[in-house]
Formats: sequence, structure tokens, C-alpha cells
Amino acid sequence: MPTVSPPAEPEADPRVKAVFDDIRATRGSDFINNFWLYLAFDADLLVATWAEVKAVMAAPSALDPKVKEMIYAAVSAANGCDYCVHSHLAAARAKGMSQAEQADLFRVMALAGKTNHLANAIRPPVDAAFVQGVETRGERDR
Amino acid sequence: MPTVSPPAEPEADPRVKAVFDDIRATRGSDFINNFWLYLAFDADLLVATWAEVKAVMAAPSALDPKVKEMIYAAVSAANGCDYCVHSHLAAARAKGMSQAEQADLFRVMALAGKTNHLANAIRPPVDAAFVQGVETRGERDR
Amino acid sequence: MPTVSPPAEPEADPRVKAVFDDIRATRGSDFINNFWLYLAFDADLLVATWAEVKAVMAAPSALDPKVKEMIYAAVSAANGCDYCVHSHLAAARAKGMSQAEQADLFRVMALAGKTNHLANAIRPPVDAAFVQGVETRGERDR
Amino acid sequence: MPTVSPPAEPEADPRVKAVFDDIRATRGSDFINNFWLYLAFDADLLVATWAEVKAVMAAPSALDPKVKEMIYAAVSAANGCDYCVHSHLAAARAKGMSQAEQADLFRVMALAGKTNHLANAIRPPVDAAFVQGVETRGERDR
Amino acid sequence: MPTVSPPAEPEADPRVKAVFDDIRATRGSDFINNFWLYLAFDADLLVATWAEVKAVMAAPSALDPKVKEMIYAAVSAANGCDYCVHSHLAAARAKGMSQAEQADLFRVMALAGKTNHLANAIRPPVDAAFVQGVETRGERDR
Amino acid sequence: MPTVSPPAEPEADPRVKAVFDDIRATRGSDFINNFWLYLAFDADLLVATWAEVKAVMAAPSALDPKVKEMIYAAVSAANGCDYCVHSHLAAARAKGMSQAEQADLFRVMALAGKTNHLANAIRPPVDAAFVQGVETRGERDR
Repeated sequence: MPTVSPPAEPEADPRVKAVFDDIRATRGSDFINNFWLYLAFDADLLVATWAEVKAVMAAPSALDPKVKEMIYAAVSAANGCDYCVHSHLAAARAKGMSQAEQADLFRVMALAGKTNHLANAIRPPVDAAFVQGVETRGERDR
Repeated sequence: MPTVSPPAEPEADPRVKAVFDDIRATRGSDFINNFWLYLAFDADLLVATWAEVKAVMAAPSALDPKVKEMIYAAVSAANGCDYCVHSHLAAARAKGMSQAEQADLFRVMALAGKTNHLANAIRPPVDAAFVQGVETRGERDR
Repeated sequence: MPTVSPPAEPEADPRVKAVFDDIRATRGSDFINNFWLYLAFDADLLVATWAEVKAVMAAPSALDPKVKEMIYAAVSAANGCDYCVHSHLAAARAKGMSQAEQADLFRVMALAGKTNHLANAIRPPVDAAFVQGVETRGERDR
Repeated sequence: MPTVSPPAEPEADPRVKAVFDDIRATRGSDFINNFWLYLAFDADLLVATWAEVKAVMAAPSALDPKVKEMIYAAVSAANGCDYCVHSHLAAARAKGMSQAEQADLFRVMALAGKTNHLANAIRPPVDAAFVQGVETRGERDR
Repeated sequence: MPTVSPPAEPEADPRVKAVFDDIRATRGSDFINNFWLYLAFDADLLVATWAEVKAVMAAPSALDPKVKEMIYAAVSAANGCDYCVHSHLAAARAKGMSQAEQADLFRVMALAGKTNHLANAIRPPVDAAFVQGVETRGERDR
Repeated sequence: MPTVSPPAEPEADPRVKAVFDDIRATRGSDFINNFWLYLAFDADLLVATWAEVKAVMAAPSALDPKVKEMIYAAVSAANGCDYCVHSHLAAARAKGMSQAEQADLFRVMALAGKTNHLANAIRPPVDAAFVQGVETRGERDR
């Protein structure tokens, strides 16, 4: 159940239409998924969010697009975001994630969930070796 | 501050010694990081956890070892696990993650954090397109 | 799908009836929402929870009732609580939250989600300026 | 680093003194731990929080006091609350939790962290068998 | 809505069949719940996950099986895992959790949620008394 | 302990200098807090993050600046972000949050943490009244 209503005719608003057109052009598809449709309840929020998603996810960068979608899906599962798990696993599949890679993603994510809970309970001191070469500047908190 | 004490002489226990030896052999290094040292407070927990970490993270699998460490670090940040963020970013760097890749990882993770909160507030219906080809079997909940 | 059954006739129990009557009187409405209906599966839990919600949310306090509902909804989205997001956004709307305020709430919440993930990954030291004037007493942990 | 200052002389405020006296009497100890000392920055918050903690944790109830502290510690680790993990593991130990029980607690909590992430990624439908006997009343959401 | 499809005939794969047979034998029931059915999308993941769940939850250990299921359910609620809350509350009931114990579980879990948020906002220093007797070894982070 | 090093001379990079100058001008202060100093490890991330924080938090909008900082701090506590809790409580205080308002913020946030856990365990159906007037468009997930 959504908490906001999408506009009755979203593309009547030229700012919404511009974003939707850009989504279609970027993806080479007519499909506008519900996240964008509902986000159009506030044109500013839509414009700013799409600009960032396009810059981070659609522009070439150091990481492979498929890997970026897999990281996105893993964080979304950790945060319990149903919609995001669906949309980013679908995007990862569309960008070539194999079933074996998906199983591996789930395995790593599940193991992280496990040792995150363990380390948050045990709270071992961070090893000096992990921060070798990391400089600390600015006022320290302690 | 840890919540448990590591054994005074962990390798006096042959099960702990076997795990520590295997950690050293697997990594080609003498370094035993604190997570394992403290986990040795219970030999069973140590043995089972290392077996799983070795199987998932050290064995060849569909995903690149560096990518697996980056996914691990991203989930750990989402879960607020200080120790795990440190250890898995260090591992990713050791496996070749460049500074540009780390910045990209942070960018994707941060964007996921953002849209996870948005989608959890807006709750748009999951698009049929995302679940095309996904079969549902077994008793349904509704 | 709920995990507990509400009582068949909740108001047959005088303690439940007293809470439901007080909910109706406090809100000036006959509507008892499902959170309270299901919580009535255990009268003690219902009595104690309503007493606290009434004291914190319905009594006059330093913050505006609308603002309190918006904070409540933001925390609920961060915690992935579907029911709570719905109920507290509805309450904020009932207390006058405009659509522009709701969009602003979503914007702030989403940005917090983003920089929370970033700061949990980067872990910058807390600036001395932030804790100026904050006194530390009692035994210190380190 | 705390975000608030405890009162310079907390027990100069009779409401704070009454709570601190009751904490001492309830526990049979002179020790006031920092959570209460800092919470005294706002006497209302202190009074209400202690009343609830005393009612839930110190009064006899269906569950064993030691088990209640273990559940509390597990939830605290899931929520990444450093202070709470420490205080409730210490309380569980004080109420008789053995080292073997603590290891078991960690094992269950870690496994839950793992399968929570898996199920949040896979999202299997809830089995009808799990909700057999659970009645649904009130207006349904769909 | 699941994100993966279970195999059309899961038990055609002998590794899946072996796990399902062991689940049935361990539980003394023909019922295979959806978590396992869907996890069978990847036989390795199924085999490894069941081995761990069986070892932790079905083997005798320091904690009572009912208590272990209650801890599991509490962590699952903290992590917002709908499926897991259902399956582990059902398991706890099957192992004898009374309605009064369930209400007590909810009370403790809810109180933990409350004070976790409070302590994460106030950030009181961890008391020396909580870590008395806990030894710190290995390289310290500060 | 940070996971990245800030640049040795951050303002030698003109893009970093431009952001730091804008932070100083926007706030009317010479103080650059550590989040920005460390984020300068990647100039792109710094530029994009500051642009968004400035747009959302420093520009006039439907909500009061103080209220926005309080919402930010509440979400940060829910997400266990130590740095963010400190920085946004400090910002809220700088924008006029009184001690009584801070106590009220903590009270609401803590209550939300409590009922979020309760509702995530009980999972009551969302009331029809909460979604009255909310339109659903696009392909439905069920």
C-alpha cells in the first residue's frame, strides 16, 4: 500500500515529463517503474532523485554497472526495503547477473548479516593493521 | 571495548590452533585479526564461523573476491558494524580495490541508503515487470 | 498477516474497554485502529503501551503535535515499519502536515539515510566543537 | 562521547533522587550506571523510563529474568547499540548466564542475522501453516 | 512476492531431496516451509544453510529450544524480517511458548527497541563495571 | 577510527576549496567539520554531497530548519550513526532547539523505536482509514 498518490496525469507537468523522457531515453525502454511514478507526487523530489540515480548508476564509473546493482540490492536487503530489493535485483539481472552470481551475492550478504551481528555483540578492537596508512586529521573526539 | 575475553593462550587449544593455522595458510600471512582472536572465547563458534567464511570468501566462486569484499563492506555499513566496515574495506583494498572503486562503492551505498528510506516511506507497489518469470509455489500467505 | 489474534470481543474485558474508551475520547473519534485492536491480545501490554503513547503524543509538550508525528514517521521508515509509517503519516496529515511538508520530511529523511551510510563507512572522528559544553561524568569506558 | 550532560548534582533533584534510590533498592547495590546518570538530564524521561524498565525487567513475569536479559542483549546487537549490548550482557551474566549460554546466544543471534538477510532478499511467501489459528479482524489493508 | 523461483521439481535434485528428507526427519513432519523451498533455487546455499540451522537450532545446547526460537524471533523483528518473525514465532509456539511468554517476549523486545534508540542518541560512556573481568588483547584501535 | 585519509592539503584542490568556501559562506563560520574534511578524499563525492545537503538543509523550505535537524538526528539515531547524531543534534541546538525540545525529541524517537518493534512483531493489517484518499496506479504487485 503506497502512502502517497501519484499524479493523475503525471506528464502534464513538464518537469515530470522531462524526467520520464530522460528515464526512457537512458534505459532505451518505455517502462516507468512505480518508484518514479509515485515519486512524481513532488516534482522537486523526483527531479533531484533521478539526477542522482542517473549520475551514480547510469554514468560510466570505476565499478561495473552490474556490480553496482548488486551492491545496491545487498544494502536494500540489509535495510529491509522490499521495493528496492526487487527493483535492483531485476536491474542486476538485466545487466547480466547470472543465477550463480545471484546465489553468491546472497551468500556474501547473508554471511555479512551473520558476522555483523557477531561483531556487534563481541565488539573486538579494530586492528591497527586495518588502519595502517589511514591518516587522522582534524580535532579528535577523544 | 570487547564484551568477551579472548583465551589467555588461544593456541593451547588444538581446535583453536587448527583454525589459526588454517587462517594463516589461507591468507599467506601470520596475522590473526581480533575478530578471530576474540571469537576463540568459544572454540565451537570459532570453528563453525571460520569454516563458513573460508567457504564463502576464500573459495573461488561466481563473483570476484574483491567484489565480494565490497559487498560485505557495504552491508556492514548498512548494519552499523564498525569492526566489519574496517576489516572488509581493508580486505577489499588488499584484493585490489582502487581509491576510485572505493569512492564508487560509497556512492552506491549512500544512494541505496537514500532511496531505501524513500521507498520505505512511499511504499510503491512492486512492478509486475520486476517479478516476470519469477514463479510462486507453495502455500501463499494471502 | 498478523502474528497474533485480537480478542473475539475485545471490549468484554473491562481493561481493554477502558483503553478503547480513552482512545476514543482522546481522539474525539470512534475509530480504533488495528495496532490497538491486535495489541489487545494481551491487556497488560495494551494498557502500558497506550498510557505511554498518550503521555508522549497526546499531551502538550515542547514540540508541536504535527512535528512529533513527523519525527515518528521518519524513525518508522528508518526502521522499516510498514504499519507505523502508514499510521504516523496519517496522523501527521490529520494534524495539518501539508503535502509540501511531507515532501520535505521525505527529503530530509532520505538525505539522512544517505549520509548515515556514508558516515558509517568513513567513520570520521566526532568534532570537538560538537561536544563543547557537554560534560562527561561517571566512570569512562576507556 | 555523550550528547548530553548529566546534572552536576543529580540527586539534588528529589525526583532524580527517588529514582536513583529505587534503582539501588531494586538491585541491592549502590551502583548507578551511566545510562541512568545521563538520562537524568531530563527528570521526566528518567522517571518514565525507569518505571518501565522496572516493570518489565525487575518484576516477576512469564519469562526467566536471565532469559529476558539475553533477549534484550540480542535485540541490542541487532540494533547496533554498543552501550545496551554491554549493559544487558553484564546483567545476564549477573543473573547467571554461563559462558556456554552466552556462546549459544551469540550463535542464535548470528544465525538470525544471516537468515534475516537471506529471507529479506528472497522474500518467500509466508506459509499458511504459520498463521493457522491466527484470526484477522478489522479492516484489511488490501 | 518472491525474488527467485523455487525449482519446478525440487526433489529431482538428489542434494535438495537429501536436505528435504533431513528436514522432515528432524521435525517429524512432512511439511517443508517456503524458506527451504525457495532456497532450493541454489542447492549449495540450501545445503549449507540447513546444515547450520540444524546444528544451531535442532541440536541440544546450553539454551532451551523454545528460548532459542524466542531470541530468533526477537532479532527478526528488530531486523524487520516478516517471514522470519512468522516462522520463528510459530516454531516457538510449537516448542511450548505460552501466550503469556509471547507477550513477555514482545514487552522485552519493545523496551529494547526503545532504550536502544535512547542510548544511541545519548551515547553514555560504557561503565567500567560492565567490562570488569573482560580482558583486552591484541592490537588496540586507539 | 576513520577508514579513509583526508587530503594532506585539501584546499590545494580547487574543487575542494570551492566547497569549503561555500560551506563557510553558508554557515557564516570558518569551521569545517570532519565529515566534509574526510569526504574530500574524493572530490566528486564531496561536491555532490554538499550540493544536496545545502539544497535540502540550508535552503528555505516547508519545514523549519530546526525541525529538519531534529528529524535528521532522529533518523541518525535509528540508524546507529554516531557521527551524525552528534553533528545534527549540535546543528539543532545551534538553530535554537531547547533542552526541553531535545528531551521531547528523544521521547518520541524512543517511543517510535518501541512501537516499531512491536508492530514489526505483531504485524497488524494496515487500516483502510490510513490510506483513504491515497490512489494506487501502475501495475500492482499482487
